[in-house]
Amino acid sequence: MTFETSLKQTAQAVDTLLDELLPLDAPARQVVEAMRYSSLGQGKRLRPFFVMESARLFDVGEQSALRTGVALECIHCYSLVHDDLPAMDDDDLRRGKPTCHIAFDEATAILAGDGLLTFAFEIAADPATHADPRVRAELVLSLARAAGKDGMVGGQMLDLMAEQRTGQTLEEIMRIQSLKTGALFGFSLEAGAILARADEVDHKALRTYADKIGLAFQIADDILDVESTPEQLGKQTQKDAEAGKATFIDLFGLDGARTKANELVEEAVAAVHRYGNKATNLEDAARFVVNRKT
Amino acid sequence: MTFETSLKQTAQAVDTLLDELLPLDAPARQVVEAMRYSSLGQGKRLRPFFVMESARLFDVGEQSALRTGVALECIHCYSLVHDDLPAMDDDDLRRGKPTCHIAFDEATAILAGDGLLTFAFEIAADPATHADPRVRAELVLSLARAAGKDGMVGGQMLDLMAEQRTGQTLEEIMRIQSLKTGALFGFSLEAGAILARADEVDHKALRTYADKIGLAFQIADDILDVESTPEQLGKQTQKDAEAGKATFIDLFGLDGARTKANELVEEAVAAVHRYGNKATNLEDAARFVVNRKT
Repeated sequence: MTFETSLKQTAQAVDTLLDELLPLDAPARQVVEAMRYSSLGQGKRLRPFFVMESARLFDVGEQSALRTGVALECIHCYSLVHDDLPAMDDDDLRRGKPTCHIAFDEATAILAGDGLLTFAFEIAADPATHADPRVRAELVLSLARAAGKDGMVGGQMLDLMAEQRTGQTLEEIMRIQSLKTGALFGFSLEAGAILARADEVDHKALRTYADKIGLAFQIADDILDVESTPEQLGKQTQKDAEAGKATFIDLFGLDGARTKANELVEEAVAAVHRYGNKATNLEDAARFVVNRKT
Repeated sequence: MTFETSLKQTAQAVDTLLDELLPLDAPARQVVEAMRYSSLGQGKRLRPFFVMESARLFDVGEQSALRTGVALECIHCYSLVHDDLPAMDDDDLRRGKPTCHIAFDEATAILAGDGLLTFAFEIAADPATHADPRVRAELVLSLARAAGKDGMVGGQMLDLMAEQRTGQTLEEIMRIQSLKTGALFGFSLEAGAILARADEVDHKALRTYADKIGLAFQIADDILDVESTPEQLGKQTQKDAEAGKATFIDLFGLDGARTKANELVEEAVAAVHRYGNKATNLEDAARFVVNRKT
């Protein structure tokens, strides 16, 4: 199965399971409608894809991996709902659709976010996710650490504070991104090792892969920002330069940034080399990260 | 140890542990400050008290009970922070202190609530809470169910929708309250049985106690609402009558409501009779519920 097929199949499986896990005959139908609106049929499902692929390295059962990926995706979706709120980024549209607080109202969006966040832990702790309670407790603990004050929530707080001033350094930007997006991303790759109760050496290999391609992704973003038109990218370009934000292009130059991104991808690929053929999709995913056009 | 002493000791222990668990040298100091502001030195800590007392019935270790109580209290505190937001109840004051979004700002309050909710599961899943991973996974699962779309979040959604119209029936009010406050309250009492891996008969006894005094509490609230002045109660009285909300006084009359509340308390006491002397504080707590003056 190629990388593209795996990504597509994961996205379909995530939607099918979410649809099943969020039935509308709930005590408070409106909040479930808003949770479904904000989680079903959204995005590339990259995080569940990485959970599935990291689980595949250790022959973890498909259902365990999928449910873990769906729990993680609930956290990602809740963070988008809350980030879009008027008091945060104040966005009316996400992927061409009205954001949750526009489609419903602000109170419902706050509660739908809270509901998705809580539901993530309900899924992870459920015996259906893994027969071994040590694995379930470990999934919850790692997911909570990645999502919480010392992870995603902390990164979002720093990002909001940084936006209130100009001239962010590259170190600040990297630190914020490693919390805001890197922590959940790291979980998506370590999940396979947690589900398999694998050795520390496996955890370390997957963390290395996650760190390398996380950074490569950011550099690729900076390259796209200067090389693309707003039409190609589907969003405003060169925003960073206007905000006085340092970019990897400032640091390395355009060619240097390209070289650096490719080096990081090869380091990521090397980190999962030990898994042989089972890591093919992860290798392709790493190369996709720097070669994408949007 | 009397009921009052136990309540006071629990409140102190909760504060000491929260202070220790939320150090300020975090990546994003501001969100931790807001989390501390919204959780330290607040309220009677009734929920952790019930966790401690239900755990005592089964001689569960003090540290396990306290950490479970603190996890639950983080959920209770997050719900207050989000409920107070302008898009929800829009409250500027809570217990005489500016609410979180007034003391900080709305974005920080949303993130502090998200941080507290996530942290609750981090605490519950941590090996320091219980040596047995089955217990930790079960704590997370029960807590998530009580707090989520089919529990507290669902109740809050229904309550917001009900406020937009007049003439709520008693059935509706009871249903909303059983989700909005009853679910977490039920968890606080079942926690002891979960921590002890006790039998279903123990779970049932504690659920009965929780249901009975939950309802007694609501009836006592209705009695206080008609019998007290705003000065005595520290909040506006007779709001329900103005909003056309049905009350237990309408159903039973004032004397009938008092009799009903006392019957429920005796039923609650009977449910924990099997635990002998160990349940003395729970018996006193049940009687306190209907005899309180605020």
